Amino acid sequence: MSDHFADRLLAAIDEKDSPVCVGLDPVFERLPDELRDDDVVGVEQTGMINLFCMEVIRIVAPIVPAVKIQSAYFEAYGSVGVDLYFELVEFARDFGLIVIGDVKRSDIGSTAEAYADGHMLGISAPDAITVNGYFGADGLKPFVDTAADAGKGVFVLVRTSNPSAATIQDFADASGKKFYEHIAEQVAEIGSGEGLIGGSGYSCVGAVVGATYPDEARRLREIMPQQIFLVPGYGAQGASANDCAAAFKPDGTVRPGSPKSGAIVNASRSVIYAFNRDEYAGMDWKKAVEKAAQKFADDIRRAVIK
Amino acid sequence: MSDHFADRLLAAIDEKDSPVCVGLDPVFERLPDELRDDDVVGVEQTGMINLFCMEVIRIVAPIVPAVKIQSAYFEAYGSVGVDLYFELVEFARDFGLIVIGDVKRSDIGSTAEAYADGHMLGISAPDAITVNGYFGADGLKPFVDTAADAGKGVFVLVRTSNPSAATIQDFADASGKKFYEHIAEQVAEIGSGEGLIGGSGYSCVGAVVGATYPDEARRLREIMPQQIFLVPGYGAQGASANDCAAAFKPDGTVRPGSPKSGAIVNASRSVIYAFNRDEYAGMDWKKAVEKAAQKFADDIRRAVIK
Repeated sequence: MSDHFADRLLAAIDEKDSPVCVGLDPVFERLPDELRDDDVVGVEQTGMINLFCMEVIRIVAPIVPAVKIQSAYFEAYGSVGVDLYFELVEFARDFGLIVIGDVKRSDIGSTAEAYADGHMLGISAPDAITVNGYFGADGLKPFVDTAADAGKGVFVLVRTSNPSAATIQDFADASGKKFYEHIAEQVAEIGSGEGLIGGSGYSCVGAVVGATYPDEARRLREIMPQQIFLVPGYGAQGASANDCAAAFKPDGTVRPGSPKSGAIVNASRSVIYAFNRDEYAGMDWKKAVEKAAQKFADDIRRAVIK
Repeated sequence: MSDHFADRLLAAIDEKDSPVCVGLDPVFERLPDELRDDDVVGVEQTGMINLFCMEVIRIVAPIVPAVKIQSAYFEAYGSVGVDLYFELVEFARDFGLIVIGDVKRSDIGSTAEAYADGHMLGISAPDAITVNGYFGADGLKPFVDTAADAGKGVFVLVRTSNPSAATIQDFADASGKKFYEHIAEQVAEIGSGEGLIGGSGYSCVGAVVGATYPDEARRLREIMPQQIFLVPGYGAQGASANDCAAAFKPDGTVRPGSPKSGAIVNASRSVIYAFNRDEYAGMDWKKAVEKAAQKFADDIRRAVIK
């Protein structure tokens, strides 16, 4: 198997026939009753969070090719949480999952190198991380170079899924080009550099493109033909499977007969906290997570194939 | 003393008569020979980094009002480094210093809350952190709310100091307004919210404005009259003291007779690695750091007063 990140991710998507990713955003107060002891406070809560995340990983591993671990919820517990984050990266990989570390780091070049060291290298490092492109090419370079050298991936924030995204990212020039399109052009250019494109035709430099803005996603698909899109916003944030389908490449197939390619859709809260949703009321929490993960994967698969 | 961050920072600047901040960006390979054992690899290096940082803090504490600790260089060592980062925050505060945690975090609202918890609350949390504004108002809100509640500060990236900054941040609309000015307008608006302005007239929501672009800094000073500017770029990145002076408010004085106010200039590598510079050749490394810190403070003071 190629050790290029895009090739590995697309192969894993093909193997599971499922272009989706489950996000681990563990919040203590939302854990299942049977795992949560409300008398436990502070870093001691990480024990229960660990049990919860390990169980979710076991449940979703047969269904999805990848998990995305949100660093913020671990950093909330200081260094103990950071340890747990890296332990869970290894745990998920032992289940054959591709692991995306959602860290959204960025800085000037010399400092970005230190972030790349800490988050992309070493045995506990995830297969890919998310980064913020606000510093431009020299801020991205250390992450991209590390990705190329180590067979890792980088997803650059282009269009985020939150309500305020438009107030910042829709800032447009005289020709009507928007700021996120400007970022996308730079990502496409940086991502097409020597040695960055895998056998699949996709780059190890991908883009985060929120599903909550499908028209924007279609336009971005044209600007960034070689980028894999990591697509947040499905479920709890309100995007439908059809909205998500806009992020896939209409003409891009990994192998004849396979569905549209070039994107992986993430759902976090709607899957990992499924047991709190009315439609799964009364169901064992693990069963609810499994059902929600299957429904999520089926939903996206159907929207992408049609 | 007011527990508002801007008031505390300006009082500390007044007390030391020194609107500067020393940045701790510790890289093992650059430590003084007498502290560095090149046979030591991996996390064991953090012991020497700790000694170095503690010594730098002791040396600069009588000279400067604040230190900025760059999280990336600690995260490079995983959770052990993260522990050290928070230990150094406490250590610096014990010397009466204001501590800025340079973490540049950002995410959608629910996740930003977790970052705010981890980086702004608890006894080891710094007095202020840097954040990235790319998500817009809802992504900034948890940081701003936490700052208001806890007497902390937030510095939003507006104009960064690196060479590629212009390729991203100079993207302009039909009227010629640039993207970083658009971000600045939002920072000014968000930062003027209820309860955010201290007795000094400055907000607990500040801005990062690189000194390497003085013309831009002057324009940003107009857009953001109530923001304290955290100004990187002096020294190793090439900005002069006069370049830095552009970030100060010409008409803003904290008290009659005081110099221009509203900014704090950061220098990292040019001070903490002063012993590697020709002008301090042969000098004891601690003496070199002290001399460089004094020279830096004098240099900025002179440029700001004139």
